[in-house]
Amino acid sequence: MLGKKKGLILVISAPAGAGKTTLCKRLLQAFPSFTYSVSFTTRPPRKNEIEGVDYYFVSQEEFKKMIKKEAFLEWAEVHGELYGTSAKLLDRAIEGEKDVVLEVDVKGGKRIKGKYPEAILIFLLPPSWEELIKRLKGRATENDEKTKQRLIRAKKEVKFLPFYDYFIINDDINKALQDLSTIINAERCRVNRISKAQLLKIKGEN
Amino acid sequence: MLGKKKGLILVISAPAGAGKTTLCKRLLQAFPSFTYSVSFTTRPPRKNEIEGVDYYFVSQEEFKKMIKKEAFLEWAEVHGELYGTSAKLLDRAIEGEKDVVLEVDVKGGKRIKGKYPEAILIFLLPPSWEELIKRLKGRATENDEKTKQRLIRAKKEVKFLPFYDYFIINDDINKALQDLSTIINAERCRVNRISKAQLLKIKGEN
Repeated sequence: MLGKKKGLILVISAPAGAGKTTLCKRLLQAFPSFTYSVSFTTRPPRKNEIEGVDYYFVSQEEFKKMIKKEAFLEWAEVHGELYGTSAKLLDRAIEGEKDVVLEVDVKGGKRIKGKYPEAILIFLLPPSWEELIKRLKGRATENDEKTKQRLIRAKKEVKFLPFYDYFIINDDINKALQDLSTIINAERCRVNRISKAQLLKIKGEN
Repeated sequence: MLGKKKGLILVISAPAGAGKTTLCKRLLQAFPSFTYSVSFTTRPPRKNEIEGVDYYFVSQEEFKKMIKKEAFLEWAEVHGELYGTSAKLLDRAIEGEKDVVLEVDVKGGKRIKGKYPEAILIFLLPPSWEELIKRLKGRATENDEKTKQRLIRAKKEVKFLPFYDYFIINDDINKALQDLSTIINAERCRVNRISKAQLLKIKGEN
């Protein structure tokens, strides 16, 4: 990895209701070097969601064409809808020394780590199962059946925790943001992120 | 590593003059959970150094007996003097859930990482070679020949950087301490440091 300086790849995964989207938004406000990796999805936009900002909203047909063209770094079906990360958009960002944050599911996180071992995988957890249920029931957009499905899915998702680098318990969003900031700043001190030019300078060979 | 909760092992290595000892002292003030791993040495105490606090000062004969008994986790000869880390003292500390900071040379750091893969290896660097020379010349205890020897050694030491986890540039001691604190706090969010009990709770299986 002692090559050209590249942007950080930060992957955040979490059960629905853990506060992933809020944390990403707060991260983007706090770290201007970060850009959000906008995913493609077939699910209909929620109120206030903006095309090209929250997601690229596409039809099932368009999405399947993209799969055929191998346009996705990872993609997944979640409750009948498709979600995918564009390989091209991610590469373009990090080559341009931009730090990128991605919200993906656990299988996608594992896949990204396989392709980019330097990616930082963060698992966001609710403070307890009781609290997660409370948060899901409070979502106006969800019905009882959906809440039940999400809970079953969440139980499966936490099994992927060992593939992740860090975990953050989201009891308080400010504390969670602080933990995330700490992780980003520590990762910037990692020896395997030193560029070749930096290393030559350290060795006194420049 | 999903076992019993253990203390962190923090290894700090640096060329002489990089500010390792000062940084360790500041760390111990800032983090009461940390304890300093006192090394054994054959070198004579400097002014103000205290037996059992800075080092355990022993004779060459005593040191060699300890080597034979395999009492050292790692030991090294530096400019004719012997330095060693007691395996027993380190194990006792981390089993007792104490965080331990060790000041060891680069070969010792590599050795410790081999035995304790969870150890956090930090390389402290001076801001530049010019600054390192200036700092070494300013040491009243050193003569010109010693300064020269230390510089040759420093050039060899930085070659070990790729075996380390993190690097910190010590331009300003407060900034260096801040970087070190960030690394410690981030390491506490590492998935591979979750205890078995914590993991069961997260999975909802407790």
